[in-house]
Amino acid sequence: MLVVKKFGGTSVADNERIMNVAKRCIEDYKAGCDVVVVLSAMGKQTDVLIDMAKSINPNPPRRELDMLMTTGEQISVAMMAMAMDSLGVPSVSLNAYQVAMHTTSVYGNARLKRIDTERIRNELDLKKIVIITGFQGVNKYDDYTTLGRGGSDTTAVALAAALHADKCEIYTDVDGVYTADPRIVKKARKLKEITYDEMLDLATLGAGVLHNRSVELAKKYGVRLVVRSSLNQSEGTVIKEVVKVERMLVSGVAADKNVTRISVVGLEDRPGVAFRLFDALAKANINVDMILQSIGRDNTKDITFTIPRDMEKDALDALENIKDTLNMQDINTNSKVAKVSIVGAGMMSNPGVASKMFECLYNANINIRMISTSEIRVTVLIDEKEVEKAMNVIHDMFGLED
Amino acid sequence: MLVVKKFGGTSVADNERIMNVAKRCIEDYKAGCDVVVVLSAMGKQTDVLIDMAKSINPNPPRRELDMLMTTGEQISVAMMAMAMDSLGVPSVSLNAYQVAMHTTSVYGNARLKRIDTERIRNELDLKKIVIITGFQGVNKYDDYTTLGRGGSDTTAVALAAALHADKCEIYTDVDGVYTADPRIVKKARKLKEITYDEMLDLATLGAGVLHNRSVELAKKYGVRLVVRSSLNQSEGTVIKEVVKVERMLVSGVAADKNVTRISVVGLEDRPGVAFRLFDALAKANINVDMILQSIGRDNTKDITFTIPRDMEKDALDALENIKDTLNMQDINTNSKVAKVSIVGAGMMSNPGVASKMFECLYNANINIRMISTSEIRVTVLIDEKEVEKAMNVIHDMFGLED
Repeated sequence: MLVVKKFGGTSVADNERIMNVAKRCIEDYKAGCDVVVVLSAMGKQTDVLIDMAKSINPNPPRRELDMLMTTGEQISVAMMAMAMDSLGVPSVSLNAYQVAMHTTSVYGNARLKRIDTERIRNELDLKKIVIITGFQGVNKYDDYTTLGRGGSDTTAVALAAALHADKCEIYTDVDGVYTADPRIVKKARKLKEITYDEMLDLATLGAGVLHNRSVELAKKYGVRLVVRSSLNQSEGTVIKEVVKVERMLVSGVAADKNVTRISVVGLEDRPGVAFRLFDALAKANINVDMILQSIGRDNTKDITFTIPRDMEKDALDALENIKDTLNMQDINTNSKVAKVSIVGAGMMSNPGVASKMFECLYNANINIRMISTSEIRVTVLIDEKEVEKAMNVIHDMFGLED
Repeated sequence: MLVVKKFGGTSVADNERIMNVAKRCIEDYKAGCDVVVVLSAMGKQTDVLIDMAKSINPNPPRRELDMLMTTGEQISVAMMAMAMDSLGVPSVSLNAYQVAMHTTSVYGNARLKRIDTERIRNELDLKKIVIITGFQGVNKYDDYTTLGRGGSDTTAVALAAALHADKCEIYTDVDGVYTADPRIVKKARKLKEITYDEMLDLATLGAGVLHNRSVELAKKYGVRLVVRSSLNQSEGTVIKEVVKVERMLVSGVAADKNVTRISVVGLEDRPGVAFRLFDALAKANINVDMILQSIGRDNTKDITFTIPRDMEKDALDALENIKDTLNMQDINTNSKVAKVSIVGAGMMSNPGVASKMFECLYNANINIRMISTSEIRVTVLIDEKEVEKAMNVIHDMFGLED
């Protein structure tokens, strides 16, 4: 059995934690597994390096920033190999160059293209634990790149795919995927299994356990993902293509407060207006989420949409540039909103899930401002202050604690 | 003109110093030079990394220690490239992998074998300053290696040789090579030029400006070396094959206090004894320097030699092991001695230089305990407490201040 195990920065923040992770990996090794370990930089080291860069150049060239940042994971993997050596187990650390992890050339946000597995397989054949730097790659110019947010998860999944691993374990500070955030919904329950698609919707919607790109990649290559805690031996949640029917319509409830609603009022009602509006936002790299178009007065229309709250300024700048061209009468924003979603592969074949959600929000006197749905998801936009109440009543309504 | 400039850890210890080095390199760049910069790790970063390694494993595997240590120079070069960018000058940082710097496979003490210059030349053609990690290489297993003490000097000289650079400037905290250590001999004078051989003898004898291996390499490939200060614009000292005749027999006086004298008394006077003695020391990795053999009483002989003082314990351990086999009667050590040497290419064709040195030591009432000579060097062993006086009288005697 070949297992890829990924540990984040918190899990390797100091020597004691590194030793714990080493022991955990050695358990699998002694049980006869081939073990590949993927590590992030220790603790907040990546932030330390970014601050260091900005102290000498407020706008450091991205290529050089990646050159600097990739030292973080190299330190982690070398320290881990030393820890394993002190425990008497042979291991070898490899960075992106040594593997090699080929990526696209975009510094700071590269995509993995191809992984050479020869070196890894040779080291595994020598009965070594192979410890690999997460988050980093090498582009066609032979330069270091980094993969952007959640990059180490992506490294782990891509390695699992390339090595045809039996499973890819992602260790976090929570012990699995829950029906809702346990800090908000006390009755939240850990799921044994969840499908890739459900996990994708949960990840996008702010459950924050796994990064989207890693789940997409796992789905594409059928990598069996397991989310587990690095702090205890709990089983975790398995993410795979088809899960056992648990007679559940809904797998979980998620909330996302990084939302601003923008309304563009009084647009001319002629073809191409919506295109030009969203094209301007896309060119400013702003992800637009929920969209609502309504007919206004006097042959005009209003368009309302949501964006990540931290992109509000960029969005308003982009809109200001086209305000006159599109004859906008007004632009309103509301940052005190949040998205609440239910996700479940079971709802595909079950009509009435959405209306059941709306009903329980109505009963709780929570106003729905926008609605968006997909095959396995229903999302509503509500006032931010109602989020906790909404999640709890929905969790109760669908009986997720059972 | 192509120039290689090497700066040590002290010169890049903080942002302010990095900016100073950047500006210094940019002067040459703006004057039309192709500029290649070689950097050590910032300040004491290498020591910090070694301590970090030892905190998790008192005997870290050398391969992993090199993997850890090589992050130090990678941070320096990335920071330097960011500094140059902030000054509006295009540059690119490269580590040992990217260059590539091929070395032997001995971790911690690798030797450079071959440097690929294609990437460097391409970047220079793009009118960039190329900033390269010193001290590190890659071996045939695709693993990082480090070059051992003085490694960054060696990197710089090897790059200068591979690129056929017009000169290789080594920046230190002194502004050149002196006729004697200015802290000891007040009248010491900076030399404009010195030959490789003289520099080699001075380096070995503790002048401490350049590491031996870099000077040997410079001699082998005819690299024009310049030792300069990173703190001022002073011209420095040029090290090359043949220097202008300055009508000087002696170029400089050097002292080395890292010396212990060991006398092995009452050895049997039969063949193979000396061989077995020094073979035991060689196997313990101890560099033996001056050697004196004398006939003792009763068909025995005494052997006296000097070793680096910090290897005294290892040497005595090695001798203890063979004490009985060789029938040694006694082992005496004296750690309160020091070597004082005069070096000069001019003395080759001038007999009488040594006796002039002995004469002035005699006049100063300084006892000579051992003597050793080469074609361009005379070394005497004296009491440590006499070193300052000896250096000054010798400096005066040979008129080195003029």
